[in-house]
Amino acid sequence: VSVNIDPPADAALADEPAPTSPGELDGLFEQASIAANELDSIGRSGRAAMLRAMASALEDRGEAIIEVAGRETALGPQRLSGELVRTSFQLRSFADVVDEGAYLEATIDHAGPTPMGPRPDLRRMLRPLGPVAVFGASNFPFAFSVPGGDTASALAAGCPVIAKVHEAHPATSGMARDALLEGARSVGVSSGVLGLVFGQEAGAELVKHPALQAVGFTGSLAVGKFLHGLASSRPSPIPFYGELGALNAVVVCEQAARSRGAEIAKGLVGSFTLGVGQFCTKPGLVLVPATEAGRHLVDALAHEVGGTAAGVMLSARTAKGFATRANALRLLEGLSVLAEAAEPGLHEGYWRRPLLLRADADNVAGPVLEECFGPVLVVVEYDGPGQLNELVERLGPALTGTVQADAGDEEQARAVLGQFSSKVGRVVWNGYPTGVAVAWAMHHGGPYPATVGSIHTSVGQTAVRRWLRPLCYQDVPEALLPPELHDATGPPDAVPRRVDGVLILPSAGGR
Amino acid sequence: VSVNIDPPADAALADEPAPTSPGELDGLFEQASIAANELDSIGRSGRAAMLRAMASALEDRGEAIIEVAGRETALGPQRLSGELVRTSFQLRSFADVVDEGAYLEATIDHAGPTPMGPRPDLRRMLRPLGPVAVFGASNFPFAFSVPGGDTASALAAGCPVIAKVHEAHPATSGMARDALLEGARSVGVSSGVLGLVFGQEAGAELVKHPALQAVGFTGSLAVGKFLHGLASSRPSPIPFYGELGALNAVVVCEQAARSRGAEIAKGLVGSFTLGVGQFCTKPGLVLVPATEAGRHLVDALAHEVGGTAAGVMLSARTAKGFATRANALRLLEGLSVLAEAAEPGLHEGYWRRPLLLRADADNVAGPVLEECFGPVLVVVEYDGPGQLNELVERLGPALTGTVQADAGDEEQARAVLGQFSSKVGRVVWNGYPTGVAVAWAMHHGGPYPATVGSIHTSVGQTAVRRWLRPLCYQDVPEALLPPELHDATGPPDAVPRRVDGVLILPSAGGR
Repeated sequence: VSVNIDPPADAALADEPAPTSPGELDGLFEQASIAANELDSIGRSGRAAMLRAMASALEDRGEAIIEVAGRETALGPQRLSGELVRTSFQLRSFADVVDEGAYLEATIDHAGPTPMGPRPDLRRMLRPLGPVAVFGASNFPFAFSVPGGDTASALAAGCPVIAKVHEAHPATSGMARDALLEGARSVGVSSGVLGLVFGQEAGAELVKHPALQAVGFTGSLAVGKFLHGLASSRPSPIPFYGELGALNAVVVCEQAARSRGAEIAKGLVGSFTLGVGQFCTKPGLVLVPATEAGRHLVDALAHEVGGTAAGVMLSARTAKGFATRANALRLLEGLSVLAEAAEPGLHEGYWRRPLLLRADADNVAGPVLEECFGPVLVVVEYDGPGQLNELVERLGPALTGTVQADAGDEEQARAVLGQFSSKVGRVVWNGYPTGVAVAWAMHHGGPYPATVGSIHTSVGQTAVRRWLRPLCYQDVPEALLPPELHDATGPPDAVPRRVDGVLILPSAGGR
Repeated sequence: VSVNIDPPADAALADEPAPTSPGELDGLFEQASIAANELDSIGRSGRAAMLRAMASALEDRGEAIIEVAGRETALGPQRLSGELVRTSFQLRSFADVVDEGAYLEATIDHAGPTPMGPRPDLRRMLRPLGPVAVFGASNFPFAFSVPGGDTASALAAGCPVIAKVHEAHPATSGMARDALLEGARSVGVSSGVLGLVFGQEAGAELVKHPALQAVGFTGSLAVGKFLHGLASSRPSPIPFYGELGALNAVVVCEQAARSRGAEIAKGLVGSFTLGVGQFCTKPGLVLVPATEAGRHLVDALAHEVGGTAAGVMLSARTAKGFATRANALRLLEGLSVLAEAAEPGLHEGYWRRPLLLRADADNVAGPVLEECFGPVLVVVEYDGPGQLNELVERLGPALTGTVQADAGDEEQARAVLGQFSSKVGRVVWNGYPTGVAVAWAMHHGGPYPATVGSIHTSVGQTAVRRWLRPLCYQDVPEALLPPELHDATGPPDAVPRRVDGVLILPSAGGR
């Protein structure tokens, strides 16, 4: 599954973009302020049309943008075209969210008596926060970068975006911006709707800018912590939505190991080597029973890993970071190498080899419990249900927790699922954690360090909630209220609402 | 309207409670962990019954608790019995929220094909965060303290509460806890459901405790910032929901001043002197037209203030703080005293006099734009729509913004309402900001410094959202799913849900 093409040609596509100056940053916010008014005045139907036009413009330029992204990231045309499909799908999904309007949480409480005396007329709706920052990821040049889910959900909410471009794919980012601006122009929204910022220092200045209202970030724990600190210590603190990574442990129960050991080994190796292990949901630890079935599974894992190929990582920095952390892991007391992919190896250019390690249960601590971004998986054998629960207890919070269980594993599986439920954002049953569907029921987040800042998801339709805040209107005349809060509404203003405490859906045809 | 009874008898009711030791704090968390499981296993109907039993237990002890609170806070029996009604109402409202179940945001996406390939079965629901801290307010011994909205909403969510008791009313807090625990016992929930912490240092340790999952705070900007810093800089940061105060500006338009000047003056003085000005929604600044009608209104304000009486503030600290800030204001360049209530005056014991100041438009800056907790209102005259908009632009974010407007004021009122909408949590039309109804459509919050930490409301049914986080179940067998996420549900598990993207309400009888 790992990528096997030429290394990325860093900065080979254009001169490195000049860092954004403070004056340019101010200019981006001035333009964003104009765009915020435009996003408001075109209304929900205008914003939905804009998001759909953006999706189409991105698709129209697909071939060219995939070619450039391929050269910048080494992710390969197949993965990149899949990611572009996902990115357009996300833009259109958020158009549907805006059309439906439930995300507004429109609420009306008519004036009336209460045990505390008369209550005024109160109407509440979510409103856009204003200009927000989006920090793109190296590993998703489309879906979690300039045209990705953070941008799509913020635009859906009505917030202009100023995106900090990841240095791994500046040319791709510029092309994506051009496509999205074409979509914006088609509904009369100006270029302030999506500004680009280059350079790490400019990124920090972006977070500190007084006009900024929130930050969406996808990336490493270290950078996430740093930017969260900046956002929290501003004279006027703003919400920070940081999506980081996780260990994403997998538990294999005894009956599952017996009945599907080879299949699980194959699936797990596919999952941890997918995209050269460069996913925030990459499984990093697997707990296997110390039984015959478990040992067969471990043998199968080693066999599978031996059959994988090295892959090109995203950047020199990523490749170096993985080598450093993977080498530190293999040198730890109680850790040993079970298998490694064929050459080329750990230290040659951007190429890195999938690596399977084994740790004693006693050594499940420190770095073994931390994310290692790249194709490494640590196997730990547990000697029974008691030790399994004790090991799962030791795990930190994560994006996901996976259980492999078959008939006969019920008791153990239920216990582990319960343990995971209190510390992950998604529990996976008889599957693998990589692959994060864009869906209403998806939650891609988790307690720190899976995410940092406010509680949130960065994938799925509910991600729009991050860019909104409630506003209550007390006794405000109807002429001054948003149309969704008028007593009588028809399409497109008829949205799901709560009126005098009761949820009401628009009548048929309202959607 | 101001209170006119004996000063509070600090610590006269009992020995000052001993500060909670680190060992005692650990013990509270151990008990809370037991209670968390109990809250889970009694389910939504059990938690609703618990909240209703708590409300009844509080009412049953009403007379005794009001007597004690009166001695601790000087708020007087009328205000306190009203607040107790509100507090019981809140507990019962959250019971209704739990019964209805929409707050769970239950979502089901069945497995199926997507443009990105097959999607697994995904089901999402909000789950309790775990033990949370509640910091009570001095000015609301019931409604924003131990038995208040933070506690009620957290218990509704299924989170045990450890409450930091405000030093202004320890005996009241102890009695409130006893009442709530009686309600908990009636449904088999143990005392770990509501622990009390005494002392400022113990409060800080509470926020830093590794087992804590979130903080609800009502109080001053200084303390809120300090605790938010602690919550954000923990090894594992947690959400902080800080409800502070605000300037709460009021704009009077010309026609409103002409037609209702005297009435507005009366209403405004009633609002800023209510509870001796000790409300987070107290209006602190009024913008009045520099016209004949405006000057009549200012004269009427001065007349009304002259007719008010001094009131007893909540504590020595509150009274001293108000005197310091009010004196600093009156000594500012460009500020002058328009009126003051009759003696006793600014420096006598806990008594403080309502104060009306005037500031030139040029001096609307610095302390004039900050909250002054207590009975003071600053009047500023504006010379036309341009200066009015410029002055409103200068205002910082706030909990509320109020517009007084009549026929003929439309253009100006619309502009000011638009300005307020971008920086307050509630816009009030031809009313006054004090009085925060407990209702679904209420929003009591606002951009920093009105609140600090995550975006939230501390009043109204949606306050429950603070104590929850989403969990996604991928391909998990039905037997291991919460009943609300089963395909087929009946009462009490049938809740409003989104299934395959479509919102569905339980059929009649489901609610």
